[in-house]
Amino acid sequence: MRTSRRATGWILLAGDTAHCPDIRYATGFVTADPVVLLMGAREQFLVVPNMEARRAREAASRRARRATSVLTPGMLGIPRGRLRNRMAQWAAGVARRARARRVHVPGDFPLAAARELEKRGVRVVVGRSAPLPERAVKSPEEILRITEAQQAAVIAMRGAHALLAACRIDAGGCLRAGGARLTAEAVRQTITDILLAHNCFCKETIVSCGAASADPHARGEGPLRAHAPIVIDIFPQHMEHEYWGDLTRTVVRGRAAPRLRHMYQAVRAAQAAALGAIRPGARCEAVHRRAARELARRGFETVTEGDEARGFIHGTGHGVGLSIHERPSLSRGDDRLEAGNVVTVEPGLYYPEIGGVRIEDTVLVTRSGWRYLAPCEKKLEI
Amino acid sequence: MRTSRRATGWILLAGDTAHCPDIRYATGFVTADPVVLLMGAREQFLVVPNMEARRAREAASRRARRATSVLTPGMLGIPRGRLRNRMAQWAAGVARRARARRVHVPGDFPLAAARELEKRGVRVVVGRSAPLPERAVKSPEEILRITEAQQAAVIAMRGAHALLAACRIDAGGCLRAGGARLTAEAVRQTITDILLAHNCFCKETIVSCGAASADPHARGEGPLRAHAPIVIDIFPQHMEHEYWGDLTRTVVRGRAAPRLRHMYQAVRAAQAAALGAIRPGARCEAVHRRAARELARRGFETVTEGDEARGFIHGTGHGVGLSIHERPSLSRGDDRLEAGNVVTVEPGLYYPEIGGVRIEDTVLVTRSGWRYLAPCEKKLEI
Repeated sequence: MRTSRRATGWILLAGDTAHCPDIRYATGFVTADPVVLLMGAREQFLVVPNMEARRAREAASRRARRATSVLTPGMLGIPRGRLRNRMAQWAAGVARRARARRVHVPGDFPLAAARELEKRGVRVVVGRSAPLPERAVKSPEEILRITEAQQAAVIAMRGAHALLAACRIDAGGCLRAGGARLTAEAVRQTITDILLAHNCFCKETIVSCGAASADPHARGEGPLRAHAPIVIDIFPQHMEHEYWGDLTRTVVRGRAAPRLRHMYQAVRAAQAAALGAIRPGARCEAVHRRAARELARRGFETVTEGDEARGFIHGTGHGVGLSIHERPSLSRGDDRLEAGNVVTVEPGLYYPEIGGVRIEDTVLVTRSGWRYLAPCEKKLEI
Repeated sequence: MRTSRRATGWILLAGDTAHCPDIRYATGFVTADPVVLLMGAREQFLVVPNMEARRAREAASRRARRATSVLTPGMLGIPRGRLRNRMAQWAAGVARRARARRVHVPGDFPLAAARELEKRGVRVVVGRSAPLPERAVKSPEEILRITEAQQAAVIAMRGAHALLAACRIDAGGCLRAGGARLTAEAVRQTITDILLAHNCFCKETIVSCGAASADPHARGEGPLRAHAPIVIDIFPQHMEHEYWGDLTRTVVRGRAAPRLRHMYQAVRAAQAAALGAIRPGARCEAVHRRAARELARRGFETVTEGDEARGFIHGTGHGVGLSIHERPSLSRGDDRLEAGNVVTVEPGLYYPEIGGVRIEDTVLVTRSGWRYLAPCEKKLEI
C-alpha cells in the first residue's frame, strides 16, 4: 500500500489547526478556533468564525493546495448566537452547500457533528487510512522547514553536551557546574533557551538519568549522576511554520560500565542496520525488523511480563512533519517508504536495572536511499 | 442551570491530555499518547499503553479525584500489535470490563470509537453539557496555579510596557530602541523570555499595532508606531502544572487621538460595569450585556455587514483553568456564576480605521463578588 493514495470523494475535517494539522496543510490557515473543511478533488470549502474570515482568505490565497472558498456561518444560513454544537451545524451547513451526500472523515472526527450530518441524510464514512496520505511525502519547502527545526535540535544538543562536559564529578558521584549540582531541569533550561533563539520550542524535552531513563517517556528531574546513562530527547516545533524536528542522544559523563557500553554499541549498530534498509519501496516493517534483529543478535532480548516490558519496547521510528508523529510509521503494518518521506530512526534498549539507551536521527528518504536532515555527533562518553 | 451539575452514569473520554484536559483533571495523569478514561460515580478506569502504566499509576495514586484502576490493553484481552483503530478497541474493552451498557461522551468524542462501541451493543449518548462541569469551580490549589500563570503575565506585560516607554519616536513616527526600530517581534521576544523565567510559555502572544489591532486575533508584526493603539494579549500556560492565565492591555506610546481616548475610556467603563455585575448567582449573559450596554451608551455601536463586524464583536469573557477557554462563558446562554469560577473580563472595541482597544483581566468569583488574581495597571498613554 502506497502512502500517497487517498480516498476519492468529499473529505470532511473539523477542529483547530493545532489539533488537526490536515486543515493547516490543505489551506495554509492557522487558527486556535475550531473550523470545518470540506475538501473535493479540485475545490474545498473552509468554514470559519466571522472574525477569522479575512485572515483565512489571505492565508488560503497564498498557501492553499486547491481553490478554496472561505465561508462564514452567516453565508451558510446559520443564525448567529450561541449554538449547542457549532461544529455540527457548520459541518451540516457546508455539506448542504456543496451538495455532498457522502463524506469521508478521519477516525477522530467529532461524534456530535457526525450524528448531525446523518440526521440530515449525509452518509459519514470513517476512512481506513489517513485523510491526506500525501502529507507523508514532503515538498522541498517542507523539507527545509523540518531541517530548520532539526538544526535547532542539533545546536541545542551540542549545548547540553557542552554543559555536561564542563562539569566536575563530586564525591557523591553527582555532576557539579559552578557551585551547584547540575540538574535535569537546568540542562532542559539551556536546551529551551537555545531552541528559542532559533524560533523553536519543545515543551517536553527529556533529560533523564540512570534508572529513570529506562522509561522512554520519563521527562527526568533532579541531579544528574556521573557514570550513568543520560538520555536527551529534543523534539522542537518551529514557532512560525510549525514543522517539527526530533533528535535523541544518550551520553555518559565519566565512564560507562561494560554492560552499558555494549548496550550503546548494539543500539548504534541497530540504527545503522535500520538506516541501511531505508530506500524507496522498502517495507516499513522490514526496517523495524532489521533494528530488532541486530539487537537480538547481540544478545539484547525484548521480554514482556504482564504489562512490564524490557529491551526494545517501541517502534523504530515515525514520520515527522506538521505533526511530531505522523505517517509512515517504522513498526508493524504494510506501508512502504517513498522518496520524500521524513522519518525518525530511533532504536533503543531499556532495562530498569541499568537504564535506557536511545539514538535517534531524523532522515529524508531519497531516490537512492536516505540522508540526515541535520547530522549530529554520536559518542557515548563525554 | 448550575455549571457544577453533571450527568449520572458512566462518562467515557478519549484522547491525550493536552487535547482532553478532562482526563488530566480527573486522573492527574499527563501524556502525549492517547488514552481512554471510563468514569463512574465512585471509581474510574484508565487505559494506557504498557509503556505508560507505571507513570499513570503513580500519578493517579497522588492526584486522581476518585479511585482509579490503571489498565493496559493486555489486561483487557486486546492483542498486541498495530490495531487499525486503537482508541476504538480500548474503549470497547474497558466498557466490557466495567459492564457499562451506556456511556455519556462529549460532542468531540472520536466517531470511530463510538461506532465500535455501538457495534458491541453499548449505547453512546452525547452529553448536552461539558462532561466534567465541576471543572468550572476551582479548588484553592487550582486558584494558586492560575494565579502563578497570571502573575507571570503581569510581569511580562510590565516588561513590554517598559520597553515601549524607553523608546524614542523617530521622524517617521516609529518607535526606536537603541539604534533600531522596535518591532512587534522584539516585544514578543521580551515577553517570551520573561514568561520562561517564570516557567510559563505563550506561543501566540499578540502584539498588534494600529489598523492590525482591529482584528482581535491578529498576532501583529513589523515596526511599532507612535500615537497608535498597541494591543498586547498574553495568555501563558505554566509548563509544569499546565494551568493558564490571560491578560490584555492596550497602550499608546505618545499621544492618543481623542476618538481613541474615548474608545479606551468606554472599554474601561465597560469592564468596570461587567465586573460590577459579577457575583455568585449572576447570569453570565447579564454580565456580558452590562459591558455591551455601557459601550452602546457611550456611542460605540456594534454593526455587522455581511461577514464584517465592527464594534464589540466578541463575548465579554471565558473561564480559565486547564484550558485557556472553558466554562463558564460570559456571553449568551443560561449559565450562572458560582463562587470559585475563574473568568476573564475583556470587553473590546474594533474599528478598522482606528484599530482595536481591549482590556482584559482574569478574576476569581468570590462569595461576595470578585477579586483580581493578579492586578495590573491600566493606563492608555506611556
